[in-house]
Amino acid sequence: MKRFEHIQGGVTAALGFRAAGVGAAIKTPGRRDVALLVADQPAAVAAVYTTNRVAAAPVRLDRRRTRAGRAQAVLVNSGCANACTGEQGLRDAERSAEVAAEALGIDPELVLVCSTGVIGVHLPMERLLDGARRAAAALSREGGDDAAHAIMTTDTVDKQVAVRLTLDGREIHIGGMCKGAGMIEPNMATMLGFLTTDAAVEPAALDAALRAAVGVSFNKLVVDGDRSTNDTVIALASGAAGNAVLNGHHPEWPVFVDALTQVCVELGKKMVMDGEGATKFVTVTVRGAKDDADAQKVARAIAKSPLVKTSWYGIDPNWGRVIAAAGYSGAEVDESRTQIFYGDLCAFDCGRVATAEELAAMQAIMRQRAFDVTVDLHLGTGEDRLYTCDISHAYVTINAEYTT
Amino acid sequence: MKRFEHIQGGVTAALGFRAAGVGAAIKTPGRRDVALLVADQPAAVAAVYTTNRVAAAPVRLDRRRTRAGRAQAVLVNSGCANACTGEQGLRDAERSAEVAAEALGIDPELVLVCSTGVIGVHLPMERLLDGARRAAAALSREGGDDAAHAIMTTDTVDKQVAVRLTLDGREIHIGGMCKGAGMIEPNMATMLGFLTTDAAVEPAALDAALRAAVGVSFNKLVVDGDRSTNDTVIALASGAAGNAVLNGHHPEWPVFVDALTQVCVELGKKMVMDGEGATKFVTVTVRGAKDDADAQKVARAIAKSPLVKTSWYGIDPNWGRVIAAAGYSGAEVDESRTQIFYGDLCAFDCGRVATAEELAAMQAIMRQRAFDVTVDLHLGTGEDRLYTCDISHAYVTINAEYTT
Repeated sequence: MKRFEHIQGGVTAALGFRAAGVGAAIKTPGRRDVALLVADQPAAVAAVYTTNRVAAAPVRLDRRRTRAGRAQAVLVNSGCANACTGEQGLRDAERSAEVAAEALGIDPELVLVCSTGVIGVHLPMERLLDGARRAAAALSREGGDDAAHAIMTTDTVDKQVAVRLTLDGREIHIGGMCKGAGMIEPNMATMLGFLTTDAAVEPAALDAALRAAVGVSFNKLVVDGDRSTNDTVIALASGAAGNAVLNGHHPEWPVFVDALTQVCVELGKKMVMDGEGATKFVTVTVRGAKDDADAQKVARAIAKSPLVKTSWYGIDPNWGRVIAAAGYSGAEVDESRTQIFYGDLCAFDCGRVATAEELAAMQAIMRQRAFDVTVDLHLGTGEDRLYTCDISHAYVTINAEYTT
Repeated sequence: MKRFEHIQGGVTAALGFRAAGVGAAIKTPGRRDVALLVADQPAAVAAVYTTNRVAAAPVRLDRRRTRAGRAQAVLVNSGCANACTGEQGLRDAERSAEVAAEALGIDPELVLVCSTGVIGVHLPMERLLDGARRAAAALSREGGDDAAHAIMTTDTVDKQVAVRLTLDGREIHIGGMCKGAGMIEPNMATMLGFLTTDAAVEPAALDAALRAAVGVSFNKLVVDGDRSTNDTVIALASGAAGNAVLNGHHPEWPVFVDALTQVCVELGKKMVMDGEGATKFVTVTVRGAKDDADAQKVARAIAKSPLVKTSWYGIDPNWGRVIAAAGYSGAEVDESRTQIFYGDLCAFDCGRVATAEELAAMQAIMRQRAFDVTVDLHLGTGEDRLYTCDISHAYVTINAEYTT
């Protein structure tokens, strides 16, 4: 299936897109905090939003606008989430889209907005609108990098991925950028993701592809198990590649979906790698569950357990915490049929416990930056895979010492 | 309703019980790790066990034995959980009950066993049986204190409560002890609780009273949200007070249930206060939810959120994390009708955000060892209350640096 190759860049790797990132003193003076991503023409759009009942104003605005399947620009600010800001928050979101549209000379209904940062604080509108105008003036084909920096909050690195593939004889690009270091950190974070492609894609098909990709990437990340009020992933397809419009009936559709998925998975992994205070990147795989739903329960219980996560930080192959989490996950579990692996070494084998020497070998695996924990329940064919990290002293420091 | 007064002591405050705690080098040489609690005569018994699918051998044995409603002794060891130990684990549990019964000269079917400590390791039977015999020889009316120490693992203090009340003209005592510092810490912990009373109580009524008491006490604690393979709460009623046998039809039954509940609530609070690394004791109250189930979802989401818990540690009235947790809890939440309080100060009032001065006043409240966080959803009459603690650097240290 793999038919793509990695290239440099992010959201402006695809033709038909320009971007910019400028500083407007919303976050910290001197840092970029307003990003603008613009398609040369109205593009097909699809989006996935937070399931949190407390949704920020920009999420509520974008939900309405992306229903039409067309968008041309996304204005993003970091430093202020515009969440829990009531009717004024909605008016501010609309007004900032309007000002960006004016500066770009396009229909305001084609402008989406995203915010990330402090909850319960109103957008500093004067600075934001000034930033939006300057960003519009600074748009360029090379601006993806500045945009990727402007959306960062507690992120320590920018997160960009781009791939190239040939589809129907045309060269096609898919690029993306994202931010997020806790799955939620309502004072200075959230998860935002932006994907672009120059392929021509039917909006409904783009929506299906994005949902599939998000389902196995951004929805499979656990940093701390919290979910934000602002989480948003937006995909834009410009059609600048000149291919015949793609949809689910196209013979090469799976190739496109696979490449989009891979971009999302890699962006997602970058977020976990940059998880607040994370020292370990752990892939949790559960197989042999009664069904996929059970596999998901077990994987989530393991990935969210503070006891399991601190054991990873402590380089402790503490399989007892793993099996206990599986046991309380709500899934069917029979300890006499359960196997637990660190890397490819078995810590618990249907009742047999690893020896001290075997445990020492597992510690060597856990000393790596990234390792796998696998649970085989031997009860069926259900499977799930999550990407997660440890809980460290630094996680506590970052989240305790950041004060309002 | 309150008709009891607090007295010194724990499980031997009630007449008809003796206890002992001895050292058998199962945990750490030099520390007590085998406790024995014995009623002079077969007593009414009720018990509540872990819901974890991976249940330890002693839990499986006791579940069977307590069904009869009668028991006379409980043998407890700390240092080894006898969990994930297969058929041999069950045989070891039965054998230790047998040896205790021999030493006591009673029917082995009347002996219960509890274990807490390392998972996946077999009981050191020789040392345990020797400890059981020595504990039987050491039983006394003053032994409750030694027993309370012998069941400790990562606990930093012993946990005992006792009350006295008059019922039907008879003086009655209810006492208890418990251990547990993480809700689960499968390598060296679990939650165990033991209640005794000299009241005569019908086994079925005792069971109903215990379930009601546990429902609002031990089941309302969140340290880290994990649940152990060994959690057990056992209540024994000796009848030594000489009262007419109590059941649900007795006019003073609610007085008994209230006192038992209060003993459980106070024991539970002691566990949270001693939570691994805890610096804050927080009572989370949710009211105005659509129904009680929704209230419970919101309270649990708040009490389990690492972001909320680290904000408590950081003395940060970060209500944004609280409302975000409410929003993703699955419960119905409308931010425009939600109020969030720290102590009696309102941080978020249906859209209005606290001022900097108000937030500073909330920090003063959070500097106390114990404080309340209350969420009023204004959607109905659903309520729930949980007792929980913060996540601190010490929590990470305790759980990361304890290696297998």
